[in-house]
Amino acid sequence: MARTKSSQTKETSRVEFFSDGVFAIAITLLVLELIQILHSDKETDLLTTCLHHWQSFLAFFIGFTTILICWINHHVAFEFIHKVDTRFLWVNGFLLFVVTLTPFPTAVLAEYLQKESTIATAFFGFNYLLISIAANGICSYAYNHHLVAEEDRIYFNSYRLIYRYAIYYTVFAFFFCFISTWVSIGLYMILFILFATPKNLTSRLEKIRTSKRNKQKIKKIVHDEDSTKA
Amino acid sequence: MARTKSSQTKETSRVEFFSDGVFAIAITLLVLELIQILHSDKETDLLTTCLHHWQSFLAFFIGFTTILICWINHHVAFEFIHKVDTRFLWVNGFLLFVVTLTPFPTAVLAEYLQKESTIATAFFGFNYLLISIAANGICSYAYNHHLVAEEDRIYFNSYRLIYRYAIYYTVFAFFFCFISTWVSIGLYMILFILFATPKNLTSRLEKIRTSKRNKQKIKKIVHDEDSTKA
Amino acid sequence: MARTKSSQTKETSRVEFFSDGVFAIAITLLVLELIQILHSDKETDLLTTCLHHWQSFLAFFIGFTTILICWINHHVAFEFIHKVDTRFLWVNGFLLFVVTLTPFPTAVLAEYLQKESTIATAFFGFNYLLISIAANGICSYAYNHHLVAEEDRIYFNSYRLIYRYAIYYTVFAFFFCFISTWVSIGLYMILFILFATPKNLTSRLEKIRTSKRNKQKIKKIVHDEDSTKA
Amino acid sequence: MARTKSSQTKETSRVEFFSDGVFAIAITLLVLELIQILHSDKETDLLTTCLHHWQSFLAFFIGFTTILICWINHHVAFEFIHKVDTRFLWVNGFLLFVVTLTPFPTAVLAEYLQKESTIATAFFGFNYLLISIAANGICSYAYNHHLVAEEDRIYFNSYRLIYRYAIYYTVFAFFFCFISTWVSIGLYMILFILFATPKNLTSRLEKIRTSKRNKQKIKKIVHDEDSTKA
Repeated sequence: MARTKSSQTKETSRVEFFSDGVFAIAITLLVLELIQILHSDKETDLLTTCLHHWQSFLAFFIGFTTILICWINHHVAFEFIHKVDTRFLWVNGFLLFVVTLTPFPTAVLAEYLQKESTIATAFFGFNYLLISIAANGICSYAYNHHLVAEEDRIYFNSYRLIYRYAIYYTVFAFFFCFISTWVSIGLYMILFILFATPKNLTSRLEKIRTSKRNKQKIKKIVHDEDSTKA
Repeated sequence: MARTKSSQTKETSRVEFFSDGVFAIAITLLVLELIQILHSDKETDLLTTCLHHWQSFLAFFIGFTTILICWINHHVAFEFIHKVDTRFLWVNGFLLFVVTLTPFPTAVLAEYLQKESTIATAFFGFNYLLISIAANGICSYAYNHHLVAEEDRIYFNSYRLIYRYAIYYTVFAFFFCFISTWVSIGLYMILFILFATPKNLTSRLEKIRTSKRNKQKIKKIVHDEDSTKA
Repeated sequence: MARTKSSQTKETSRVEFFSDGVFAIAITLLVLELIQILHSDKETDLLTTCLHHWQSFLAFFIGFTTILICWINHHVAFEFIHKVDTRFLWVNGFLLFVVTLTPFPTAVLAEYLQKESTIATAFFGFNYLLISIAANGICSYAYNHHLVAEEDRIYFNSYRLIYRYAIYYTVFAFFFCFISTWVSIGLYMILFILFATPKNLTSRLEKIRTSKRNKQKIKKIVHDEDSTKA
Repeated sequence: MARTKSSQTKETSRVEFFSDGVFAIAITLLVLELIQILHSDKETDLLTTCLHHWQSFLAFFIGFTTILICWINHHVAFEFIHKVDTRFLWVNGFLLFVVTLTPFPTAVLAEYLQKESTIATAFFGFNYLLISIAANGICSYAYNHHLVAEEDRIYFNSYRLIYRYAIYYTVFAFFFCFISTWVSIGLYMILFILFATPKNLTSRLEKIRTSKRNKQKIKKIVHDEDSTKA
């Protein structure tokens, strides 16, 4: 049952719309936790209430940035992905599962950052670890099952590598929260900056890999010349 | 008043977008029930609260999987459906009605799985029964009213049959909850796995039906030959 | 500054997507009011709680049907509307305002249908009156400002007339709630059935108007003949 | 790695869909704060409850209008923007951040307009200031990085200027709330009317700027003539 090119494009776009919907709702639901604080302390005045709940605002900012970066990276990946199959819907579904879950660790941060900072950061860190696993899953599946156009394969290979390295990074940041909460949050901020522009990151990685390969080539040539001379 | 082909494509796509929106929101609203548990027990610590509410996490997982499978199957069906009419909007509207309702039985599972497991599973099972009726409705209406391209009709016939069988299955699973809650939940898990890849399921069904037909043909030929001989 | 045809199509589609988003969210938020009832009475068992809150389920059904019919009619209208201007965005914005407001009278129905049935139905009826004014506004604006393709103008004129009649109907139904709540709700159910398939309703209206015009023509001809004879 | 024109169009459209989703959800979540008032005072009757919470209805109206105007202006800007780059996603992301935040100052208005009117209006005003900064950011970035078609550049330059002036206006309105709450709210109403039709506003600005330039030209010509005579 051959499907035409145009219907495949349509297929991809529907996955993107559904994903966009989930991203957009998850990112907007975060504000409900903020509104909640208005209903908690009815005695104190507005400014005191807001200052007293500064972690809620910090958590809103962190949660928003997490989901926005997630969307931007999803967006860039789907610039290259031209086909989908049913199993890929499940790989993408796992990412959406983690994204819809994200308001929960964000609410945990807002409520428990002062009382139980270590556990609260661990919750958030575990969520971030799942995100990086899901992102790596999408890129690896798309690469291995040739859902990416052939002319983009070499570039996309570097692109998916940055998510593999992100897994190691988030594992490290996750365990670091048991040593220091704030250093751990700092590590996530660095991750935010790195993955804010995934194309730049990929370009940098490509440069490093190319220069490494060139060095190895040079080494090999030098070595070959040496052995030829010898 | 003849509508051109291009405006019909647009018509289909708007139904898909509205449906995608409803799916995306229903699936994301599930997290609100999770966040709720953070506000319930303020005395206990975070980990104890989470462990104490393990059914909320199980319910979140089940609710998410239910709606995601629903979306994947909707997605595959609309790969074949090329036209819509106003009555079809109502058939699709019934599915959306059940999908928007889904967070309710999910919340019921989260709150009552320990206290009243039978009734809670019955609620969820009834919802699942409605989903399979709605899914069968969409496929049967699209098949009978020729909303599917002619070249896909034979395949789509097998596709809609899997939803008819799903009705019998969900009726069975629904009544089984009065015997054992956990076996009933197990039956839904099997259903999840079967409908995770509806195209595979359809292919398998087609094979069985083809081999049956072939057997019947062989029987008939053998019988004809026998009667010819006689 | 001439805009090309293709960018105008894009313009229309974005209004549709934004509207679809608002419809989809408003229709899905209704379930939150249902979930609420699980948190209200913690002592009673699940079935008693649900039976005790039967108005919440009725309100959910009425609210869902209201918004779905609204979407279907919006959908049919935008099959004909090919252009938008900034003022039209405001006319459409007024409809979206009433749609986003709809969960409020629905919640009022759920909470107050038993206690203060007259006022609760009046709230819902007023909302329905606003919906019909907004629907008439969209169709009239699109007709008067030639946002509809020229070949569809005659048909669209009949289409917009059904919404003008709907205003008279909803005004009548609104005031009827002060006489009897249930008859008023019955009137809304009839409205649901009539506007479930707006194209059928338009066709019927066209038939009536055509036969009327024909009768008048016949009368005129007969009259002319009489006067000629005389 | 050259991307074709068609894939760039797709890229723009995905940014619009995601933004539309965020706008649609933020605008629809406002109703949750309205529904809240039904759960607050259980003793009083429905009409008294609603009259008692008139600020909630006013806040709903103001919040809805704020986000709708924001969407309309976003919509008009994206009629001209034909390309996106990753950094632009962040500029747009900042606008979405402020939009998702908007239900919070709206809820603040609803809860504190009577008790602490100055601080409540200051919250809302600060949010509006952020919106105008974000809107200016989008237009300036798109203009400076040539994301706008070349033939639209001159018009778009005037278009982005109205958002720069809006920043001055909102700074002024923000500080005015410390003198009088109601005059400050009045200033926002004027802003609503001005930005309700951004294209009209741009045309008017263009006229003023052209007539100014012409006057200066005339002055210069007169001056030149004078000096020539002298």
